[in-house]
Amino acid sequence: MFKVKERCLAGRIGVLKTKRGFLETPYLFPVIDLERQEIPLSEIRALGFRGVITNAYLLFRRGFKGDITLLLKPFEVIMTDSGAYQYLEYGRIDIDNATIIEYQKKINSDIAVILDVPTGDSKDRVWAEFTVRETLRRAQEALKLVDREKRLWVLPIQGGVHLELLEISAIESSNLEFDIYALGSPTKMLERYRYEAILDMIFSVRRNLPFCKPLHLFGAGHPMMIPIAVAMGVDLFDSASYILFARQDRYMTEAGTKHVSELEYLPCSCPVCHRLDARELRELNRAERTRLLALHNLGVISATLKKTKQAIVEGRLWELLEEQSRRHPRLYSAFVWIAKRYSKWLEAFDPRINRISKAVMLYDLLSLRNPRVGRALRHLRTEYSPPPLYKYLLLRPRTSIDNVSNEILTRLKDQVHIVFYDEVLGVIPSELSRTYPLGHSITPGIRPWGPSKSLLRRIREYVLKYKSSYAMPIMIEVCREWDESELLKELPSDVSFKVLVVDCEY
Amino acid sequence: MFKVKERCLAGRIGVLKTKRGFLETPYLFPVIDLERQEIPLSEIRALGFRGVITNAYLLFRRGFKGDITLLLKPFEVIMTDSGAYQYLEYGRIDIDNATIIEYQKKINSDIAVILDVPTGDSKDRVWAEFTVRETLRRAQEALKLVDREKRLWVLPIQGGVHLELLEISAIESSNLEFDIYALGSPTKMLERYRYEAILDMIFSVRRNLPFCKPLHLFGAGHPMMIPIAVAMGVDLFDSASYILFARQDRYMTEAGTKHVSELEYLPCSCPVCHRLDARELRELNRAERTRLLALHNLGVISATLKKTKQAIVEGRLWELLEEQSRRHPRLYSAFVWIAKRYSKWLEAFDPRINRISKAVMLYDLLSLRNPRVGRALRHLRTEYSPPPLYKYLLLRPRTSIDNVSNEILTRLKDQVHIVFYDEVLGVIPSELSRTYPLGHSITPGIRPWGPSKSLLRRIREYVLKYKSSYAMPIMIEVCREWDESELLKELPSDVSFKVLVVDCEY
Repeated sequence: MFKVKERCLAGRIGVLKTKRGFLETPYLFPVIDLERQEIPLSEIRALGFRGVITNAYLLFRRGFKGDITLLLKPFEVIMTDSGAYQYLEYGRIDIDNATIIEYQKKINSDIAVILDVPTGDSKDRVWAEFTVRETLRRAQEALKLVDREKRLWVLPIQGGVHLELLEISAIESSNLEFDIYALGSPTKMLERYRYEAILDMIFSVRRNLPFCKPLHLFGAGHPMMIPIAVAMGVDLFDSASYILFARQDRYMTEAGTKHVSELEYLPCSCPVCHRLDARELRELNRAERTRLLALHNLGVISATLKKTKQAIVEGRLWELLEEQSRRHPRLYSAFVWIAKRYSKWLEAFDPRINRISKAVMLYDLLSLRNPRVGRALRHLRTEYSPPPLYKYLLLRPRTSIDNVSNEILTRLKDQVHIVFYDEVLGVIPSELSRTYPLGHSITPGIRPWGPSKSLLRRIREYVLKYKSSYAMPIMIEVCREWDESELLKELPSDVSFKVLVVDCEY
Repeated sequence: MFKVKERCLAGRIGVLKTKRGFLETPYLFPVIDLERQEIPLSEIRALGFRGVITNAYLLFRRGFKGDITLLLKPFEVIMTDSGAYQYLEYGRIDIDNATIIEYQKKINSDIAVILDVPTGDSKDRVWAEFTVRETLRRAQEALKLVDREKRLWVLPIQGGVHLELLEISAIESSNLEFDIYALGSPTKMLERYRYEAILDMIFSVRRNLPFCKPLHLFGAGHPMMIPIAVAMGVDLFDSASYILFARQDRYMTEAGTKHVSELEYLPCSCPVCHRLDARELRELNRAERTRLLALHNLGVISATLKKTKQAIVEGRLWELLEEQSRRHPRLYSAFVWIAKRYSKWLEAFDPRINRISKAVMLYDLLSLRNPRVGRALRHLRTEYSPPPLYKYLLLRPRTSIDNVSNEILTRLKDQVHIVFYDEVLGVIPSELSRTYPLGHSITPGIRPWGPSKSLLRRIREYVLKYKSSYAMPIMIEVCREWDESELLKELPSDVSFKVLVVDCEY
C-alpha cells in the first residue's frame, strides 16, 4: 500500500498504491469541482498531477450516480472527501457516516474518507473533546463498512489546537486499521503564516502514529508550507488554493502570495510566466487570467514538490528548510521552532546517510541543529580521543592554503596531528576530514576579521581536554590578517602555543 | 542612451537604447556562435531574450562580410565582442584595435567593444599595469575611430584582482566618453564560487565610474551571481555558460549547478522540466539533451533576472540577497561580505523609499545591515527624543495581543507613551509604527523562550537614555511564558519597573 523509498529528517519519498494506480509522495491532490472547473483536467494532468481530490458530499447532493474514475478519466488516483469541510463551513451537514461511506464505495473512489467531525480552529475544549470522541466512534463504526481491499480509507485525527487531545486521538486512531491518517490544518493560522502551531500539531500526531502509515494534511497546499510539513513527516496534501487564489488574482511564489497588481515582472520560469509579461497577464479577460494563474500556481506547487523530493534524495532537507527560512520572517520563525523544539526528535528518524549524500551545507550556529551534524558533533564530543600515534598538535584554519607550516610538517613528518578549526563546525580532527558529514561539508569558512568568540571557546575546550595527549608547544596557524594577540588572549594561558602565520583564502 | 527607471541599493532597472531597439537592464546577453548553435535562435528569442552577443573576431577570421543584424535577425540588439577572450585564452590575437573597430562598424553591431588587453586572473602586477596602460592607450586611439551616434561603444576596465589598478583604470576611463564600461570577471574564482574577490572588483570600478553609465560584467552569468552583482551596481552580463554547461550535462539552479546524473527530479517549473522527468532527460540523445538543458539554463537565468527586477521595484533587493545567502555557504559568505564591507556604501545609492515599497523583512541582527533599516535606526539613535506630551512609558512586545495592560491604558489614557520592543529591530516608539521602514516591517517577532541579551541591552539603553522624560515606574509588558526575574536582572536596577504579564502570540 505505502512503501518508503528514501528518507531524510522525518520526511520521506514513498509510493502509495491504490487498486488502479500509484502516486509518489510527498504529493498534493489538486481539489477539483467539476461544476466550476476553470482549467481543463488535461492541463492539470499535463503538469504531472496523477491524482486529484473531489468532494463526495457535493456529488451526492447533486445526485451523481456514476463511476467517479470515468468522470475524472485523466487521473489515475481519485480521492474523495466526505463533507467534513462543509460541516466546518456551515456548521451542519445532512448526511450520515454510513451513507457517505457507502456512497464513496458506489462511485468507486480510489481513496475515501469517513465522515469525521472536524475540530477546526476552535479553542473550545469541550467541543474539541466531543469531536475527538465522536470521530473515533464513527471510525469504529466505519471499520465494519469499509472495503479496504478495494480502496484506501482515510481516518482524520481530531483535536485541533488542543495538542493533548490530538495525542490521545492519534494514539487511539493508530489502533484502528486505516490506510491513511489525516490531520486538519488550522486554516486561520495558515492564512496568517503562523506555522508554529501547525508544526506542534503535526508533531503531536506523527509521533503517535505508525511511521509506516502515510499522513495527509488537509487544506494546506502553499509552497511555503510544503517543505517544513514534509520534514515533520507529512506525506500528502490537498489544496484548492491554486484555483481560489487564481480567482482572486493571486499569484503564488515560494516566498508568499502576491496580487497581480503588485507584479511588474513575473518572477518565475513556468510556461505561463515565460509566455506573458505582468502587464499582459493583467490585461487578459478574467476567465483566461484565472486559468493561467491557476496553471502557474500549480506549476509552483509541482516544482516545490520536486525540489523537496530532490532534497530528500540528497540528504539535504534540512538545508532546504534553511533556504526557505530566508524567504519570509514567518518561515524563519518556523525554522527556528523546528531547530529548537524538534531537531532532537527528527534525529531519531533521520537516516545517518542517504544513498546519495551530498556534502552538508552549514551557515551559522543554527545550522548545527541539523540532526546529522548534531549527532556527529555529539559523538565527537563524547567518544573522541586523539590517535596515540602523534606527538604534536597543529591547529589549522579549515580553508588555509598550506604554506608556511609545511616546512615544519615536512620536518616533523608523521608526528603531527592536524586538527582543523572552522567558524561553524568548530574543531574537526583531520582524520575525519574525508568522512560524512563533518568532513564532507561546506561552510562559509574562516573570515579575514578573525575567529569569533564562539570558535575560540571551542578551540580552548579542545586544547584543555586533550593537552596531555600532545607534546608542547601546540602549534596554531593563524591568518595573516588576524590580530594574533587578540586571539591568544582567548586561549588557555597555561598552555604554550607556537603561532604560525599563514596566508588564508576567504 | 541609458535611463534609470527604478533603484534599490546600487542596483537599478534601466533602459538601454540602441539605434535599432532597446533593452531593459539588468540584462544578460546569451553568447551566440552561429557555427555551433545547438538551440534555434527563435527559441532563445521566445524566452524573452531580445539581445545577444557574438564574437566579432571569430566572424572576422571566418571572413563574414555581411550585416550582423540580418544574420541574427530575431534579435533587436546585437552586441559584438572584440576578441579579448581569445587573447586571454591563447595569449595572442592576430588583429589590431583599429581593424576590429572598423570591422564592427562594417558589420553593423549595435553594441561594440574596443580591443582591450584583458588582465585576466593574473597576479603579476607588472603585467596588470601593462594591461591597464595599454587598454587606456587603445581607448584613446579608439575615440578617434568610434561612431557613437550609430552604435554604443564599450570600454573594458583593466586591473583584474589588483584593486588599486582597477581604481586608477576606472578613474581614467571615466574621463573617456564611452557608452558602457565593462569589467572582466576572474573566471577561476567564479568557478570556485569565490564571490568576495569579484565584489571587491565591482566596488573598485563602480564607485569610480559615473553612476549614470551602465556597467557590464564580462563572463559572469550564473543565476547565483546575478542578484549580488546587480545589488553592487552591475547592469549587464553576458554568458556562454548556459550552453557550455548544457554540453557537459550540467543543469543550472539558483543554488548551484548539478550534473544530470545527480538529479532524480527536475526541481524547476520551466517548460522543459514540466515536460520531462529526470530519467527521460538523461535518456535523450545528446543533441536533444543539450538543446533542452540549454533552454532550461536560459529559463533559470531569465527567471532570476525577473526576480531581481521585481525585488528592485519592491525595494527588497537586500532581502533577495538574504534569501540567496541560504542557497549555498559561499553565497552566505558573499552576503556577509556585502553586509560588513559595503552596506554603508550601498546606503548612499539606495533611495529611501521606492514607488512601491513593500514591508521590509528582517531575520536576525545581520538584517540590520540592510541600508534602509540601518539608516532609519541610526536616525532614531541620534535624532530621537520622546514626545513631551506623555507622562508614562509602557514597553510592549511588538506582537503581543493587547489585553491585561489595556485596563491601565484606559485609565491613563493619553498619558502613556507606548514603545515596542522587537527581537531584531530593538526598541521602536509606537509613533513610528506606521512609518516605513521601521514600522512597515516584518520580523520573526519575540519568542516564547524569552528575549535575547541583545534585545535586553537595547531596552536598557533606551531606559537609561530617556528615563528622565517619564514618570516612574516604567511599565513593561512581558509574555506569560518568560522568566520574569531573568529579564529584570538585565534591566537597570536603579529604575523602578512595573511588570505586566500578557498573553503573547508567537
